[in-house]
Amino acid sequence: MSSAAHHTADPDRLWSVDEHLEDVLTTVRPLEPIELQLLDAQGCVLVEDVMVPLSLPPFDNSSMDGYAVRVADVAGASEEFPASLEVVGDVAAGAADPVRVGPGQAARIMTGAPLPPGAETVVPVEWTDGGLGEGPVSGMRARSLAPEGATGQVRVHRPAEARAHVRASGSDVQAGDLALKAGTVLGPPQLGLLAAIGRGTVRVRPRPRVVVLSTGSELVQPGEQLAGGQIHDSNSFALTAAARDAGAIGYRVGAVADDADTLRSTIEDQLVRADLLVTTGGVSVGAYDVVKEALSHVGDEDEPGGGVEFRKLAMQPGKPQGFGTVGPDHIPLLALPGNPVSSYVSFELFVRPAIRTLMGLPDVHRPTTRAKLVCDKALTSPRGRRQFLRGTYRDGEVRPVGGSGSHLVAALAQADSLIVVPEDAESVESGTEVEVVLLG
Amino acid sequence: MSSAAHHTADPDRLWSVDEHLEDVLTTVRPLEPIELQLLDAQGCVLVEDVMVPLSLPPFDNSSMDGYAVRVADVAGASEEFPASLEVVGDVAAGAADPVRVGPGQAARIMTGAPLPPGAETVVPVEWTDGGLGEGPVSGMRARSLAPEGATGQVRVHRPAEARAHVRASGSDVQAGDLALKAGTVLGPPQLGLLAAIGRGTVRVRPRPRVVVLSTGSELVQPGEQLAGGQIHDSNSFALTAAARDAGAIGYRVGAVADDADTLRSTIEDQLVRADLLVTTGGVSVGAYDVVKEALSHVGDEDEPGGGVEFRKLAMQPGKPQGFGTVGPDHIPLLALPGNPVSSYVSFELFVRPAIRTLMGLPDVHRPTTRAKLVCDKALTSPRGRRQFLRGTYRDGEVRPVGGSGSHLVAALAQADSLIVVPEDAESVESGTEVEVVLLG
Repeated sequence: MSSAAHHTADPDRLWSVDEHLEDVLTTVRPLEPIELQLLDAQGCVLVEDVMVPLSLPPFDNSSMDGYAVRVADVAGASEEFPASLEVVGDVAAGAADPVRVGPGQAARIMTGAPLPPGAETVVPVEWTDGGLGEGPVSGMRARSLAPEGATGQVRVHRPAEARAHVRASGSDVQAGDLALKAGTVLGPPQLGLLAAIGRGTVRVRPRPRVVVLSTGSELVQPGEQLAGGQIHDSNSFALTAAARDAGAIGYRVGAVADDADTLRSTIEDQLVRADLLVTTGGVSVGAYDVVKEALSHVGDEDEPGGGVEFRKLAMQPGKPQGFGTVGPDHIPLLALPGNPVSSYVSFELFVRPAIRTLMGLPDVHRPTTRAKLVCDKALTSPRGRRQFLRGTYRDGEVRPVGGSGSHLVAALAQADSLIVVPEDAESVESGTEVEVVLLG
Repeated sequence: MSSAAHHTADPDRLWSVDEHLEDVLTTVRPLEPIELQLLDAQGCVLVEDVMVPLSLPPFDNSSMDGYAVRVADVAGASEEFPASLEVVGDVAAGAADPVRVGPGQAARIMTGAPLPPGAETVVPVEWTDGGLGEGPVSGMRARSLAPEGATGQVRVHRPAEARAHVRASGSDVQAGDLALKAGTVLGPPQLGLLAAIGRGTVRVRPRPRVVVLSTGSELVQPGEQLAGGQIHDSNSFALTAAARDAGAIGYRVGAVADDADTLRSTIEDQLVRADLLVTTGGVSVGAYDVVKEALSHVGDEDEPGGGVEFRKLAMQPGKPQGFGTVGPDHIPLLALPGNPVSSYVSFELFVRPAIRTLMGLPDVHRPTTRAKLVCDKALTSPRGRRQFLRGTYRDGEVRPVGGSGSHLVAALAQADSLIVVPEDAESVESGTEVEVVLLG
């Protein structure tokens, strides 16, 4: 694991955003595939080429409600000189052994029903008198109300070419064709195709189970009263929702107090249901930074790849970050800073791509675009840090919302994008073209 | 209900796509709001203006790990001539009753901890010797490993202005401010804000429960063997997935055979868990079109608004459609044609907007764009019908996939858009600008 290789590195080294992201994405591997029921596989990535086992449609069938007839029997038919045929029965959809159509005969046929033996073409019911002996009809009467419709005579008012209104066996897909290739993301039409070719289950990478826990003795559950010095826990809610939004199954663990033993045992408990762990808070340089304290030494010498490394990133917000693996199965863990805006921006930049890598998705990153910055006064940014400011994007322009203070959770709720101020910029004037991450 | 008004209308009247859609969207009303736990409200629409009950942050607090001091005590401090202060204790995050800082004193303070009484500013730990009596440090040692850090002397190497590294009470949001307005869609940052201001639950329109059932005696569950004349049910899978994709809770009911009594009792059973019902198949002019047969007469004279109307739409695919309400609570029901491509296109055009209307979402339609058609030969379309062809869109160009035959379920799985050929066009040449619905 790459984090192990860095384990003895200089703790004061400043990592670039790209270096940290690369470390995360080279350590996190796509989850092992499992066989899932179709509707459980929605949004997942197929890991096998799926071939068509049986052509679709599997048999010649009617594309209309009408009458299955022989071509010669309706040649030259018109409303004035209709062809009068004997109705020998109904062919409903699902009919296993349809009635045979001989010369001078017709079978009443329903959309999707197999073309019966002897029949060469289908005339729609609207081209006939529907067996009523009068003019053209607009449809059939329900079989249950008028069973006599399957017998008697029908007058056909128009001729039909051979195989008119017939969907040929194999005209959609042929047995042996590639239906879907490995790597396809399964949305509704793909699941429909799999069902259509008879697949009840499919082999995919499952949704990752992401356990989110926030840390901090100051945190109180929303809905409960605050005492002095306390605030409400918001990170575990925002990040569990963000994990779900990224495609994961998100489990929210309540806030954990700043006690290393409690945190360590909580994480050990959660490992059984985690493909990825996300913590917030306790990663900086304070004396009570419990995540750092609890996890810095978790790596066992006998377990290669274990251990979480804490580092400083050349970014704002989100400078302190931890990353590594924990437990005997080396479950990846991202330790994010505790400030709500810092943790959310860190989630977008590092955790979301990690989740999508676990899923095996082809595109793990949010889309980015270039936009013209529109602001009242120039944006300032510390040299050497990549800054991510919250913005609203529309029609090629982006406007900052809120300030650069990382605690502006209210402004974050108004933003739809992140404005990227690169490391070498200390000031960005209104009108400058900037990179924008679209949060969708 | 508008469908009732149309109930006696001419069954042969051709409805435009827009007329049918308008009928659906004026009949379907947003669901009644309920109070939900935050994480259950993800993706839902807020129905109340949410005000901030308590300013954020609720108290002045430190934005850094460092020392809370008086300004005068560190004035003029430098590495050569540091200010030496007595450390009177720690102020951790969550501290209810922090130690008082007097002249010549400092309290070690953690990020997020309340600024203690007497202190006027915060110096980051990196501007001090961390109490070790040597040069500048890069952080604090964990309290559990070095409890002596909360006592002794600290040397401060730089002065600090009043309230430096202090986040002022109310600097994020003020009590009485509008946090989120009614109509906001609750994504991760909005849920984070609600948690931050202490809201444990929130009043939203719930996700609609959408029951999907396919009809047809020819339908067999995927994974099971086909007998003669049978095909696998795919609609109930594709449309349940599409309902979930639209934001609903989708319930898939297996395929129902073409028997009106069975269908009627299945629908009656499902009503208890349905905010919307979707059926496929059985809506055309055949003698076994069971949905039409079962539901055309469901409307009771004593129940205004009940009953489903079956109609012909000026579109391809998807000409036969049913719409109305069923049951004593007048649950809306959309009866789609049975062909997989017809039903999927119908879902996109009519059911998805209905689901999003139930949710109260501001934007119920898929985005559309204009694109240049690129194709080998001109597309043909029946005059008077709005045709929806499956396409792939990229960079302002759209290419058709598969033909216009409505049974091409394989091509549908490759498409990412629908090419709209308007009613008055019979042929569209390559290079023409066309309207495209982006299926996203």
